[in-house]
Amino acid sequence: MNAYEKVLRAQAARNSALCVGLDFDLVKMPDHLSAKGLEGALEFNKKIIEATADLACAYKLNFAFYERFGAEGYDLLKKTFDYVPDDVLTIADAKRGDIANTSKGYAHAAFDFFGADALTVNPYMGMDSVIPYLNYTDKLVFLLVLTTNPGANDFQGLTVDDEPLYKHVFRKSLDWADKTNLGFVAGANHPRKFQELRMEARDRIFLIPGIGAQGGDLVKVLDANCNGTAIINASRGIIYASAGEDFAEKAREQSEYYLQDIRKYYE
Amino acid sequence: MNAYEKVLRAQAARNSALCVGLDFDLVKMPDHLSAKGLEGALEFNKKIIEATADLACAYKLNFAFYERFGAEGYDLLKKTFDYVPDDVLTIADAKRGDIANTSKGYAHAAFDFFGADALTVNPYMGMDSVIPYLNYTDKLVFLLVLTTNPGANDFQGLTVDDEPLYKHVFRKSLDWADKTNLGFVAGANHPRKFQELRMEARDRIFLIPGIGAQGGDLVKVLDANCNGTAIINASRGIIYASAGEDFAEKAREQSEYYLQDIRKYYE
Repeated sequence: MNAYEKVLRAQAARNSALCVGLDFDLVKMPDHLSAKGLEGALEFNKKIIEATADLACAYKLNFAFYERFGAEGYDLLKKTFDYVPDDVLTIADAKRGDIANTSKGYAHAAFDFFGADALTVNPYMGMDSVIPYLNYTDKLVFLLVLTTNPGANDFQGLTVDDEPLYKHVFRKSLDWADKTNLGFVAGANHPRKFQELRMEARDRIFLIPGIGAQGGDLVKVLDANCNGTAIINASRGIIYASAGEDFAEKAREQSEYYLQDIRKYYE
Repeated sequence: MNAYEKVLRAQAARNSALCVGLDFDLVKMPDHLSAKGLEGALEFNKKIIEATADLACAYKLNFAFYERFGAEGYDLLKKTFDYVPDDVLTIADAKRGDIANTSKGYAHAAFDFFGADALTVNPYMGMDSVIPYLNYTDKLVFLLVLTTNPGANDFQGLTVDDEPLYKHVFRKSLDWADKTNLGFVAGANHPRKFQELRMEARDRIFLIPGIGAQGGDLVKVLDANCNGTAIINASRGIIYASAGEDFAEKAREQSEYYLQDIRKYYE
């Protein structure tokens, strides 16, 4: 089963488009776990996964939170990937990109070493920098198109032939691979712009970060999505719903809260 | 001493603008070292450093070659960073970029954990995604502007207000930090375009990859550089000059060969 089918099955089995971002942070974690350092972080991730695996169609692991601890962080990353049940998609949110010869190394890391189903990739260096990831045809690449941060507009919004740059990135890259191999990242805080992209590619999977802590409006995103396949991510809003010993229980409640809104929308 | 001063001193002390890229590859390394896996790779890196530290003003470590081995690769990366003499610049070539909250993790990894003097950063996500790196004011950020790969033109070359995108990236980011904190990456295979950038920022440090295996012409690059401060990188052309037991000796010879050309140019 390729990653694309895995998304569809995971979403159908759970009636869920929710992705949980495992952005562990020793400062925000419950004290009894932070006190144990990265061992506590592994316990934290495991408990969050156990509490939400029947609700989440995907887990997204942002490498930055792990990489800051060097080799030990990468060990934690590997153990966390390994702990995710096989029927839930794993997304390596690493935003990688380099010349082709080098990108092969990053692709190997994400897909072979960590065994991720999907990887986020930065488009700035152009097609040949993305192809090494797309060569893993059973995996999904999510290309950054329109990001959630305030500076997104600095370059992504520049006008090229009467259209913003991010639309050129999107349209050009649509030719690089089919829907089973290439999806896109569009921030939840740009629902109108996301809808324009969705209208041009109804069959692509979109990864939508920015719900919750980053302030994206879920209903507006679902309106914009027009029943396409979307993976809607929340990280801090779920995993740090409580800093007490009940953190896993509260993470589940918060996941249910988002999921209820998504399910209600589709009723 | 900040990273900027370190560049100037390392270049003056050696009369050198040469950077050696430590892109280890078990397949290309001498057999007697590949046979020992990552332990052999550390030995390889150490021998290359020992053989070239009086010629190179900087070492560039591309994370992809290490990351493919997960935690063990990161351990090798750390040990290699630690082995570089203090008076030579270390460049973490990781091409990172993410929303501000997350970029902090990558900045911590490169600057605090690995202790690198400089980091390459991808501009696609805009100013606030780059600021967390620039907040390390004693370090150098090299922002990708114009890359060496064939796909560079896909987006970097798109026309915005009669100018290519990469020029907008360059000009806009010049305001983000001063010359001691922010430099740029421009590929050796675009000497004319590089010269245009150099003319607009004579005091900035440029990191120039693409000499050697990637085919950039050294003299054209030096012409274009107009006596500015540049760090000229060669990786494969130096470290794989021989696949035999004489690899370190040959790496030194190849470094001397490039360096001779650079020195002759400035005579």
